[in-house]
Amino acid sequence: MKKLRIGIAGLGRLGKVHANNIANKIPNCELVAACSIMPAELEYAQKELGVEKVYADYHEMVKDPDIDAVVIVTTSSEHCWQIEAALDAGKHVFSEKPLGVNVEQCKQAEAAVERHPDLTFMLGFMRRYDKSYAYAKKKIEEGAIGTPYLVKATGIDPEAFVEGAIRFAKNSGGIFLDMGIHDIDLMRWFLGSEATEVYAMGSTFKHPEFKEAGDDETGVAVYKFENGAMGMVHVGRTAPYGYHVETEIVGTEGTIRISAVPEKNQARLYNGNGVCAECVGSFPERFEESYLLEMEEFVDCVLTGRKPGVSVYDGTKSTRIGYATTEAWKTGKIVKIN
Amino acid sequence: MKKLRIGIAGLGRLGKVHANNIANKIPNCELVAACSIMPAELEYAQKELGVEKVYADYHEMVKDPDIDAVVIVTTSSEHCWQIEAALDAGKHVFSEKPLGVNVEQCKQAEAAVERHPDLTFMLGFMRRYDKSYAYAKKKIEEGAIGTPYLVKATGIDPEAFVEGAIRFAKNSGGIFLDMGIHDIDLMRWFLGSEATEVYAMGSTFKHPEFKEAGDDETGVAVYKFENGAMGMVHVGRTAPYGYHVETEIVGTEGTIRISAVPEKNQARLYNGNGVCAECVGSFPERFEESYLLEMEEFVDCVLTGRKPGVSVYDGTKSTRIGYATTEAWKTGKIVKIN
Amino acid sequence: MKKLRIGIAGLGRLGKVHANNIANKIPNCELVAACSIMPAELEYAQKELGVEKVYADYHEMVKDPDIDAVVIVTTSSEHCWQIEAALDAGKHVFSEKPLGVNVEQCKQAEAAVERHPDLTFMLGFMRRYDKSYAYAKKKIEEGAIGTPYLVKATGIDPEAFVEGAIRFAKNSGGIFLDMGIHDIDLMRWFLGSEATEVYAMGSTFKHPEFKEAGDDETGVAVYKFENGAMGMVHVGRTAPYGYHVETEIVGTEGTIRISAVPEKNQARLYNGNGVCAECVGSFPERFEESYLLEMEEFVDCVLTGRKPGVSVYDGTKSTRIGYATTEAWKTGKIVKIN
Amino acid sequence: MKKLRIGIAGLGRLGKVHANNIANKIPNCELVAACSIMPAELEYAQKELGVEKVYADYHEMVKDPDIDAVVIVTTSSEHCWQIEAALDAGKHVFSEKPLGVNVEQCKQAEAAVERHPDLTFMLGFMRRYDKSYAYAKKKIEEGAIGTPYLVKATGIDPEAFVEGAIRFAKNSGGIFLDMGIHDIDLMRWFLGSEATEVYAMGSTFKHPEFKEAGDDETGVAVYKFENGAMGMVHVGRTAPYGYHVETEIVGTEGTIRISAVPEKNQARLYNGNGVCAECVGSFPERFEESYLLEMEEFVDCVLTGRKPGVSVYDGTKSTRIGYATTEAWKTGKIVKIN
Repeated sequence: MKKLRIGIAGLGRLGKVHANNIANKIPNCELVAACSIMPAELEYAQKELGVEKVYADYHEMVKDPDIDAVVIVTTSSEHCWQIEAALDAGKHVFSEKPLGVNVEQCKQAEAAVERHPDLTFMLGFMRRYDKSYAYAKKKIEEGAIGTPYLVKATGIDPEAFVEGAIRFAKNSGGIFLDMGIHDIDLMRWFLGSEATEVYAMGSTFKHPEFKEAGDDETGVAVYKFENGAMGMVHVGRTAPYGYHVETEIVGTEGTIRISAVPEKNQARLYNGNGVCAECVGSFPERFEESYLLEMEEFVDCVLTGRKPGVSVYDGTKSTRIGYATTEAWKTGKIVKIN
Repeated sequence: MKKLRIGIAGLGRLGKVHANNIANKIPNCELVAACSIMPAELEYAQKELGVEKVYADYHEMVKDPDIDAVVIVTTSSEHCWQIEAALDAGKHVFSEKPLGVNVEQCKQAEAAVERHPDLTFMLGFMRRYDKSYAYAKKKIEEGAIGTPYLVKATGIDPEAFVEGAIRFAKNSGGIFLDMGIHDIDLMRWFLGSEATEVYAMGSTFKHPEFKEAGDDETGVAVYKFENGAMGMVHVGRTAPYGYHVETEIVGTEGTIRISAVPEKNQARLYNGNGVCAECVGSFPERFEESYLLEMEEFVDCVLTGRKPGVSVYDGTKSTRIGYATTEAWKTGKIVKIN
Repeated sequence: MKKLRIGIAGLGRLGKVHANNIANKIPNCELVAACSIMPAELEYAQKELGVEKVYADYHEMVKDPDIDAVVIVTTSSEHCWQIEAALDAGKHVFSEKPLGVNVEQCKQAEAAVERHPDLTFMLGFMRRYDKSYAYAKKKIEEGAIGTPYLVKATGIDPEAFVEGAIRFAKNSGGIFLDMGIHDIDLMRWFLGSEATEVYAMGSTFKHPEFKEAGDDETGVAVYKFENGAMGMVHVGRTAPYGYHVETEIVGTEGTIRISAVPEKNQARLYNGNGVCAECVGSFPERFEESYLLEMEEFVDCVLTGRKPGVSVYDGTKSTRIGYATTEAWKTGKIVKIN
Repeated sequence: MKKLRIGIAGLGRLGKVHANNIANKIPNCELVAACSIMPAELEYAQKELGVEKVYADYHEMVKDPDIDAVVIVTTSSEHCWQIEAALDAGKHVFSEKPLGVNVEQCKQAEAAVERHPDLTFMLGFMRRYDKSYAYAKKKIEEGAIGTPYLVKATGIDPEAFVEGAIRFAKNSGGIFLDMGIHDIDLMRWFLGSEATEVYAMGSTFKHPEFKEAGDDETGVAVYKFENGAMGMVHVGRTAPYGYHVETEIVGTEGTIRISAVPEKNQARLYNGNGVCAECVGSFPERFEESYLLEMEEFVDCVLTGRKPGVSVYDGTKSTRIGYATTEAWKTGKIVKIN
């Protein structure tokens, strides 16, 4: 049984999730190296995960002949050049979303992927691997709702984490780039078509700090797609009940709605507040299993030579749409997407 | 358009519900008389409902040739003789449940009904007329769940009204007679068979006053039926979330469950408590529409000569089962029901 | 007990609902006259409802000194002049929505209402009287969700009735005027602010007949409001599961969502399809009780001199927004609303 | 990082689940040996899981000094002697439920556990480790529902697997021993008290083969507990919608209900059947994560010297209650439990 030898770059909150999955939860791979500019993260990799080789310099790690694949969980602005460097060094690459922070970067990553058609590249749109989303996709492919023509997506971060969002507001690229990229990917994936036009708006009612930073607390966008389909997105940062990701796909013969109640588990409390479902508190809690399933998919794709469902072009297209949405929101105008 | 002329006996909380429905909500009947031993209730009938004839003496009212039908909403122990008197006076009769407070009384009512086959008699098992219950019955008759073989019934009064229940505990006949009669009727109705054996138990964890009064706060009973089917009943008095009536009918091809969440309406609150449904607060709130629908059915049965779905024998049988359940609970033994 | 004497104009499907409520379900009013250009409707009023006076000519009816109030359930294009004629004849007026089919008509009705400040005028935005919507409004007023800043509204007619919609498509004024007016009213009501801008789009995937008639099967619109709040509307005509009206109000401290599952009743079927809620089939089924409650409100307002919650200006404003939405949809442009 | 070296006995369906979790999903343990009387199972262990040492003879495996702990997933009747042999050989032991097939066997296992107080013994009541059940327990300990006094448990196998159940019916020990043991454990766990009395009954409406084998298709039992609390259990084998495990804990201040809708995932289908949740199909699907979490707990208990929450006595007591329930069901009598 050949195991895929992986080096990880970035061991922040999400990096640790990936590192633990690779090291401990997926049989046919091993975590053999870790790279970070934070010494504490490298120490974590060594002590907690038993990783033998640690690197402060990314270029050093991708040169290591012991490594078959690189998993990139660094700051968004570093993704594209790291993707390129790893591919050019002959490594398979898994990169967290977003692909890049602008379309030029994405194009650079695209070129690198095209230069290395034999290497596997996969982008971390992990929602596609969530059991409920994968089930919805399968049902749709089986014809359960006819032709899908409208996606309604909601993504709201918990009020509990709003302080961090406020601190980050100036550098987030705005609410649509920061929060809408998964919803944009899901719209494209479920509709099987490309967005051609977007109109967007935002509001700030609770934390004026967002407005002051040129951002908004809540954003709403609508999209037209090439095949005539439509999309509605609502993103926000202040859900008092937890982390709320909900998606509805409307088709000619039915609708599938995922997670209208963002339930923490299957228990319901009957008490003075009525009948209540406690909600998931954060994205790692909601998508814990998806992070594992997507990495299993990556490892399996590399080992079997299959192509992952998420391509580099999905990354570029989502980024392009994210920018168009941001422009629509900032200018108050309808923006065409080519 | 001939209208059914009705006299009502008893204008307490539930009596007022019936009186208002008759006077104001049902086109083909009129409330022409009211009888009560409480002067305030008669004043209410005159002033609020415009009833012209009021009686302190029930016998007087049933002699009134202006009246076609009598609706009995008096104390349970008075039902049977009042049914008999009205029928013998040539009036159609609707009586609130329970039919009587012992089987002997019920037999007396049965005899009166049998003496007057041309008069309509209907017993107020209003749950059968609730939209959800009537829908379940219809679905079952259409074969939606195959052969029903198990009914699981829950009926819990709100903690908000527990003081009244405590005051009434000494004279309630015990929790199963007081609260279980609707569930017993529903089991018989949905299973289409008669109970032959019961075992029951009770507990008191919150209000020792019930135990002190020889009653219990919560009761649990299981039943065997003639055709091999089974029943489970859970009754209680202390739901902190409201009034909880839930019924599940299990069949060979499916299950129907009614009101697992005893929702007040279709709104859901997403807030710090999670996602919550506020619950109905009381039986008049939960069954408001059922009281109207059952009275419409009574009026229609009288005017068209149809027989109501609920017969006098349903009353006797439920009472008999209620007594057997009470005996099982009090003695700790399995009790046969003939 | 003085009863309000009402004459009704129009006895189509919805007219019959109102007529029956007035004649049979509301104690402090009577249906004394009916007006229709269809003889069968007048016969219905006489035979089924016992209405004594019937009119083919609306002007005749409003002259009748026996009538205190007029209820208008005629074709939308007739509403405004009928409102004016009735008010000028000294009658209180209840009119079905929409107020008028263009803003000029609405202004005419406004002027009539202003000429007669002592007469009651109420517009039939019955959703406001639905128990779940009224509950949501009350909760919001109590502060349950803080400041509301986003309304997400969905209204989809059942596929079962699509043939009628197709036949009517050429004359419906388009999907937003035909179907969005209630959602527009609800947005204004819940947000307590006026829409200033709209962008809209539509699609037709199942029945090309809509497109051929210049209409669409599904419409999506987004709104900006004066106070910075936002609105999203999704209307459609082809729900395979029934009649789907859902509304979500998002606030700074919570969200209220009404009818995410457009359940027919409280029964759930556990069978080969999973656990299923059957859905309501049509708007009269969904809003049966609301039609009664709004008419009770009208009668009570007249008798007590209270002002109804829905004013003539609500009608004009919703119509204006409906037209702006239609313009946005037809032109593909952002439309300002003044 | 010391890893716990585990040998597994039994590699049937559930054995494979455990073996894969140990081999691949839990970082601080290794699967070093496997024992089975089925050569194909040993081949699976070698080829799929890379297990080096395989044994046909259980006694041989427990003598292996390389092994720290034994996981027993064999036929129920072998559990107790295998527990004893492993403990006496100085190994920590995890055994699948039930502890034994009669109380005598259980006592033998108890004695072995008592002889080796320094060794960890844990019984596989995996529901306790399910996220929803663990959440419920934690909430109850925090006082969320006051004092729990009634547990209502439902466990129904899918009709899809009924053929296997029919074949196994003669040797299953009857429906309550076969299916009720988890529910019995949960009642004891949530109520924190011991059952003192049971009454039970069964029925067979769909597959007469169960009755012919001396078994039943559906069973219902009620329990009294030492502290006055009560329990209701409903077990069955013919759910057309999937695998249905539901548990409700009723307390003085509230109720927690787990999995009233045994949903497969968070997607809902809106189609011609209404709004539907597809259901989980089997216990491995429902409790996939619980099997992993309980094994992590076992490994952690061994490595840290903590005592597991589930003791050998929990096994004996549940078995005793299972037998008493079976006696009550077979004899039709109330059975005391000491």
